[in-house]
Formats: sequence, C-alpha cells, structure tokens
Amino acid sequence: MSSKVHAGKEMEMEMGGNESSGKTEENNERKSFSTRMQGLQRRVWARIWEVGHEDPRRVIHSLKVGTSLTLVSLLYLMEPLFKGIGENSIWAVMTVVVVLEFTAGATLCKGLNRGLGTLLAGSLAYLIQYVANETSQVARAIFVGAIVFMIGAAATYMRFIPYIKKNYDYGVVIFLLTFNLITVSSYRVDNVLKIAHERFYTIAIGCGICLFMSLLIFPNWSGEALHNCTIYKLEGLAKSIEACVNEYFDAKLAERKDETSEDPIYKGYKAVLDSKSTDETLAFHASWEPRHSRYCYIYPWQQYVKLGTVLRHFGYTVVALHGCLRTEIQTPLAVRLLFKDPCIRLAGEVSKVLMELASSIRDRRNCSPEILSDHLHEALQDLNTALKSQPRLFLGAETNPVNNRNQQGSSASLQTVKTDTSALAEWRSKRASELPPKEGGEMRKMLRPQLSKIAITSLEFSEALPIAAFASLLVETVARLDLVIEEVEELGRIARFKEFNLGDEIPITCEKPRVDVSSNHLPTHGIE
Amino acid sequence: MSSKVHAGKEMEMEMGGNESSGKTEENNERKSFSTRMQGLQRRVWARIWEVGHEDPRRVIHSLKVGTSLTLVSLLYLMEPLFKGIGENSIWAVMTVVVVLEFTAGATLCKGLNRGLGTLLAGSLAYLIQYVANETSQVARAIFVGAIVFMIGAAATYMRFIPYIKKNYDYGVVIFLLTFNLITVSSYRVDNVLKIAHERFYTIAIGCGICLFMSLLIFPNWSGEALHNCTIYKLEGLAKSIEACVNEYFDAKLAERKDETSEDPIYKGYKAVLDSKSTDETLAFHASWEPRHSRYCYIYPWQQYVKLGTVLRHFGYTVVALHGCLRTEIQTPLAVRLLFKDPCIRLAGEVSKVLMELASSIRDRRNCSPEILSDHLHEALQDLNTALKSQPRLFLGAETNPVNNRNQQGSSASLQTVKTDTSALAEWRSKRASELPPKEGGEMRKMLRPQLSKIAITSLEFSEALPIAAFASLLVETVARLDLVIEEVEELGRIARFKEFNLGDEIPITCEKPRVDVSSNHLPTHGIE
Repeated sequence: MSSKVHAGKEMEMEMGGNESSGKTEENNERKSFSTRMQGLQRRVWARIWEVGHEDPRRVIHSLKVGTSLTLVSLLYLMEPLFKGIGENSIWAVMTVVVVLEFTAGATLCKGLNRGLGTLLAGSLAYLIQYVANETSQVARAIFVGAIVFMIGAAATYMRFIPYIKKNYDYGVVIFLLTFNLITVSSYRVDNVLKIAHERFYTIAIGCGICLFMSLLIFPNWSGEALHNCTIYKLEGLAKSIEACVNEYFDAKLAERKDETSEDPIYKGYKAVLDSKSTDETLAFHASWEPRHSRYCYIYPWQQYVKLGTVLRHFGYTVVALHGCLRTEIQTPLAVRLLFKDPCIRLAGEVSKVLMELASSIRDRRNCSPEILSDHLHEALQDLNTALKSQPRLFLGAETNPVNNRNQQGSSASLQTVKTDTSALAEWRSKRASELPPKEGGEMRKMLRPQLSKIAITSLEFSEALPIAAFASLLVETVARLDLVIEEVEELGRIARFKEFNLGDEIPITCEKPRVDVSSNHLPTHGIE
Repeated sequence: MSSKVHAGKEMEMEMGGNESSGKTEENNERKSFSTRMQGLQRRVWARIWEVGHEDPRRVIHSLKVGTSLTLVSLLYLMEPLFKGIGENSIWAVMTVVVVLEFTAGATLCKGLNRGLGTLLAGSLAYLIQYVANETSQVARAIFVGAIVFMIGAAATYMRFIPYIKKNYDYGVVIFLLTFNLITVSSYRVDNVLKIAHERFYTIAIGCGICLFMSLLIFPNWSGEALHNCTIYKLEGLAKSIEACVNEYFDAKLAERKDETSEDPIYKGYKAVLDSKSTDETLAFHASWEPRHSRYCYIYPWQQYVKLGTVLRHFGYTVVALHGCLRTEIQTPLAVRLLFKDPCIRLAGEVSKVLMELASSIRDRRNCSPEILSDHLHEALQDLNTALKSQPRLFLGAETNPVNNRNQQGSSASLQTVKTDTSALAEWRSKRASELPPKEGGEMRKMLRPQLSKIAITSLEFSEALPIAAFASLLVETVARLDLVIEEVEELGRIARFKEFNLGDEIPITCEKPRVDVSSNHLPTHGIE
C-alpha cells in the first residue's frame, strides 16, 4: 500500500512542477532531443558514407543507373525521338530500372530472358487473338478469361520445376506478364500486332542501353567476383587454422579474446560456411558473360562451385577444430604445450599450402607440383613422434605425473566438481519441490548451463582425450587439404591456367581481403 | 597406314550401302528417334507430375494465380467495370503477376512495399512537377533529366545500405519505377495527379486481390514453413547422429554404403548446413504475417533464426563426426567394438533428446524438464568407464595386445604401407624425370590421392587416436546439445508455448519428413 502512495506522490510532483522549472526542462528536453537527432543524423551519414567507402563500385553502379535512366528518358523528352516511338517509350524506362544489375552477367541474363519471354508471349498472344477473332464479343470475353486462367496456372506451375526455376524463372514471369498484357488489351484494342511489336521494340531499346552500360562502362563481372571470392575464402581458411592452433596453445590469447568481439578464427571461416547460394548465383550469372570466350571454350564456372563445396567441407573441419577450443573438458595447458611445436608447425604448413593455392588461382597459373611439400610430411611425422613420446599421457589423468606436477590447480578444480551425481540429484529435488511451475522456465534457464558443465566435466574423461581429438582433427585437415588441391588442379586444367615453371618464385603475399562480395548482390526484382 | 585404309573402307561401306539397307536403316533411325522422343516425353511428364506430387500446395498455388489473373482481367473484360476504371486497369493485371507469392507473408511484404513505394513516388513526382511547371519547355526537359539522374543514382545507392536492402529493397525499386514513370510522362501529359492517382488506385485493386487470395484461400504461411523446417532439421540431425554411430561400428554397413548413393547421414544434416538464407527469408516474410497477433504479441520469428544458427553449429560437429568415418587412419574394428555399446547408447540418448525437442516444438509446448535425463548422464559415464578400462589402448599400436590378437590383417597392411619415405622419394624422382611438363597435370592427378594416403597412413599414428577423436566429438555433441536446448526453451518462453505437464506422455513419433521447404521458395521478381 505504501509503495502505491509513494508512486502517486512522485507522479504528482512530476505533473505539477512549477512553471520555471517546466520551461528549463522543456529547454533541456529540446536540447537533448536536438543533440540526439544530430547524433542520429551523423550516424546515418556515416553509414551512407561507409557503404560507398567499402566498395567504390557501388557508387559507380549508382551513377550508371542514373545515367541510363536519363538516356532512356531522352526518348520521351526529345521531340524527334518521341515522334518516332511515341508513348510506348515508357516501357524502355521500365526495362532500364529492372534489367540493369550490378554485374554484367546478371544484366545479360535478365535482358535476354526478358527479350525471349516477350517474344514468345507476343507470338502466343497473336496466335490466340487470331483464333478468338471470329467469335462474338461475349464468347471472346469468356475465351480470353479461360486462356488467361490456363496460361497463368500453367506458367506458375512451370516455375516450380527445378530446371526452369534455376535458369529461366525470370523469363517465365515476363512471358506471363506480357501475355496477359497483350491478350487482355487485345480485347479493346484491335491491332494486337502493333502492341506486341511496340512493346518488343521499346524493351529492346531498354535492354540495349542496359547492356551497353553494364558491358562497356566500368563493367563488374560476376566471374571475377567468383574468382576473388574463392581466393578470399582460401586465405580466410589459412588464417583461421593458424589462429586456431595459436590460440589453443596460448592461454593468454584465449583470455584476451573474450574482451574483443572480433574473433579472427570465426572471421576466417565465416565467409566459407554460408557461401553456397552466393557461389551458385555468381557462377550462374558468370556463365552468361561473354568475357572469357576469346579462348573459344566455356570457362568452367561450375568448377568454382565444386571447389566451393570442397572448401565448405574443409571449413566444417576447421569449425570442429575451433570447437575444441571451447569444450568443457580441456587438456591442461602444461600437457598441451608438449605438442605445441609440432601442431603449430603442421598448421603452419597447411596454411602455407592454402595460401599457395590462393596465390596460384590469383595469378591464374597451375599450382606448384611441390605443393605437398616435404615440410608438411615432416610436420606430420613430428607430430606423430611427439604423440608417441608421451605414451603414458593417454592413461587416466590421475596416474599422469606430468599433470600432477604442473597442473595442481586444475587437478584441484577437477576434484571439486567431481561430486556430480549428488549435485545433479540436489538440483533436481530442489527444482521439483521449490519452484512453482510458472517460474520454472526462468530458473531452469539459469541452472541449465551449470548442470551440463557438471555433467561433462565431472566425468573425468581421460584428460588426453581433447588433445587427441585436436591432433586428429588437425590430421584430418591434411586429408581434406588433398581434396582441395585436387579441385584446384582440376580447375587449373579445365581453365587452362599457365603452366607452373620451376624457376617461378612463389610469392606468398597476404593481400588485404576484398570486401565480402555477396553483399553487393542486390536482390533481383524484375519490375517491369 | 593400314589403320587409315581400314577406316576409309569402313566409311565407304557406310556411305555407299545398297538402297534397301539404307531404307531399313532410315526406318530404324526413325524408330529409334521416335522411341527416344517418347522416352524424353515420358520423363518430362514424370518430372512435371513429380513436382505437384511432392507438394500439392504447388498445384493449389498455380490455380490461385490463374484465378486471380482471371478475376483481375474482368476489370478489363466487363463493360461496366471497364468504364469505371479504364485503360489503366492493366496495371492491376501487372500487380497480380508480380505480387502474388507462394506464402502469405511474402505477398503481404511485396504488396505493402509496392503500395508504399507508389505512394511516395507519386507524391514526390507531383511536388517536382509543381516546381517545374513554371519554366519553359526546354528548361523543363533539362530539369526533368537532371532529377531523373539524381533520384535514380540516389535510390540505387540506397539499395546497398544493409538495412534498406533487407527490409525495403522492393519498395525502393517500385519507388524508382513509379517516379520515373510519372515524372517522364508528365512532360507530355498535363494531369500528373490523375496518372499518379490512377496508378495507385489500380495497384491497390491488384494488391487487394492478391491479399485476398493469399490470406484467405488456402493460405501458405511462411511462419508455418519455418516452424516445420525447424522440426525437420532437428529430426534430421537426430537421425544423422544415430546413423553415423551405427555405421562407425558396423563394417558391413559401411561397405554396403558405397553401392547406394543415398547416404542417410548426409541426408540428415544436409538440410541444416545451408539453411541460413532460407531461414532468414522465411523469418522475414513471417514477420509480415498477421496470423499470430491474436495473442497481441509479436511472434518471435527471430528466435527461430537463432535456433537455426545453433543447429547449424551442431550440424558442423555432426559433419566432423561423419568425417571420422572417412579418415585414412582408422582404429581397427576390433578395438572400436570395445566402445560400441556406450557410444551407441550415448548417440541414442542425444538423438532421443533431439527428437523430444522436435516433438515439443511441433506440439508448441515446453519441452520436458527431464530432458537432460539420467540416461544421458549414465551413457556419458559408461563411455568414460569404457575408455578408462582400456588404458593400454592409448599406447602405440604395436604394444597393443588386443589389436595384435584380433586384427592381424590390418596390422599387416599397416606394415606394407610403412615404406612411405621411399615411396615418396620414388614418386618424386619418377615424375621429375619421366613426365613431360604438359602431361604432368593428368599424371599428377592420378598419383596424388595415393600419395596423401601414403603420407598419412604410413605415419602409424597411435591407432587409438581416431577413436579418441570420435569419442571426443560425441561428447562435444552433448555439450552443443545444451545450447540447442537453451534456445528451444527460450523459444518456448518467448512464444508462450503450453506448459509441460508431468502427466503428459511424451510420444516420440517419427513422422514422414516434410518436403524440403526451401524448394517452394520461388525467386522474387517484382516485375510490374
């Protein structure tokens, strides 16, 4: 009751403050509002600036769209051009808005799909009008309605067929659109052929301007984006593995990590994991680009997709390796340090190979045949020797002298969480008796992480288990590396990369990674 | 030389066969052509049938599109309606083609974006025409051109800003389109307000029909798709883990696998791995759906996305586990069998928990608080006991009595590949001396896999390493399971799932998995 009274008083005070204080408050509020607005404004401008700063091609693309729109507007604005084409030139404006995409491949794909769809729809609509022409007005309306229904349903159904969906979805939509446009219009307008013809004509002009702009003025190639993206992913994985192993053997690094949100390991493999759809889209658009046909063969974009799949699977192993850093049961650092050098060396070799693969793709040359070098082999052998030299390690923790000597603290903490079953039972009885069911959810959430920690750490798995898993996964990366090398070599073979000359030096450079390519991929709307 | 002559004779015989044989050949060819065509036709029809059979909602959607198009065509076909609206009713037809999407959320999102974009563009165009009206014809043309350029460039640039791109990309495109349409037309037509008004009006009619069709007639909800997809993923992971462990301990199963291409393990986690973009799209569309607002709170679709992320990370561990089945170094089966029961039990428990989570989400109830059951805990302890009971196992392979007794064959094969360094050196000298550089690529490809196998298997890593890694990853899944449970509980809390009653029985059913939802997601074109 008292709290209510108190609240009431506060409210009164707030409501009925004297006027002067009210004015200053108002002023303050206004000030704080204006500063807040300024802050917001500044942040918005910073964001806008950043978008262009990240990748200046975006600015260029925006200017290109503006220029194309102005050019196509001239059809309407200039008297002589307008007289030639007429009102329908508005279709050209629409085409430019819709077809001009960020990359040349996407523009070509959409432009050609649009042209083809319009052409087919026009022909079909003409045929249908030819059939319908003989009948009475009412019968014709029914006929047109039925045809619209059938073609609409059939075309939409077609879009679900995977092959059509992958290659010609946009074409089918444009077909449906144009067909309806012409068929329905033809009911009131007699000269369907003229509509179809004009529509096709203006769309062709629009497509022409788009193709000119996207192929000849500062073109962005999907193929190049895919190429760079692959290089970026290889480098990211290389860095990830190195960072992962370094962190595993450096307790300080692991501690320092929690402070900064930027995790170099995650950053390295992040781009790889969810790359499937981006890769496929880029490869699809790249396959429309004429650029590489000067060699008179089809550039193997699908091989990049394949390489991407293998890299993704390589990435999963790196994720598992990363997971080893975060498990509840950990091999004591002193034990880990026994394997530090061979592990770091092996990871370094794997990462060197990945870097070499990246640079070979960048220079479009075959990778060095010495890529699976002696060093890698020696590093594997070192790790093996190190593992063998500590046979007693793989016994239980309690009989491990190294552990007992160096890791008193850790052993002690293991002792304290050892009372797992009792803790579990206690927790359970506590929850069952004390908590009302409504609050159970909240409470449960708080208790759960503790519970699982108890359940796992208390089991006192052989402390060597985690390091064994870590080493095994590291060896697994070497095995997966092989698949990566295979795909890169296959790529070099199909794409006819330059031969590797023994005299060539292999400069393993670490360029500033390009901006994440997928973020330039605008959703494709086909608004006419 | 002789082979050439022979070839020439054959050619002659082919070219100059007597006429009767020519006719029968022609007949045969025609027959084989017709049978081939028939086969192709049959396959095409089968494919078309399959698309509808897989998910009958596709057929319904197609019929809905057909019906909507017919309805909207009536505006044009029926005299009284046409008189009221006029030629512009063609915009309504366009709107239907573009806006009607497979799910209600996507339709709503596009419809509202389209309405908003048109409204904004109309207002801005009217404002600009108001300013430009006072000037001369030429100055006006220049002004319009400049405005078109600026707005075009600015709007395109806006589309790169992540926030806009995620939420309002379609709206911006429609804005740009409508703005250009009206501004450019206004140069020749005086009454811009009428154009803008009619366009908005007809687009509203089109959107209305689309919303009616997609919200009220057999609606497909993005939210429901996301919900089902999450259940499907949980079940897939559960099956994957079980299959993985079963295969690891069953040599026959592993052998049988190579024959059939269908891999139950891969099939289980496949849907999880690349689910990011599908999840996000579904959640985005679901957030537009009004369906769950009857409880007056926003349904937590983003929580599903979060759960999806955790499941993906769980999936990566399963991939690593799957990787253990394929590594070059393998613990001999006899050794593996020592851990068979506890591993299978643990995997069974993990999989049971996942199934229970799936069924709790399906029934929209909180999951059982007993979900981290004693059984799981006991299974962990069993595994630990089994690992501890074989301490000598983690010594080198050669000193392992179990291994020597049971796995004579495997030991022998290890002996034979042990000559790794010599094999490596031999391979290298062979390649350097014999192969001309051009053929190196081909040859290298053939030799490489062998090489890596030699490099890894020959190292004679402790044979216990792989089983240690396998066990460790299995324990890791338990740790990750905790995160999954946490997110599911959080989901239950935010979405206010039913409370779990102790009396409720937990039916762990294994329903026929739904069709992969992502394949229903048609690309969104916004063709006007």
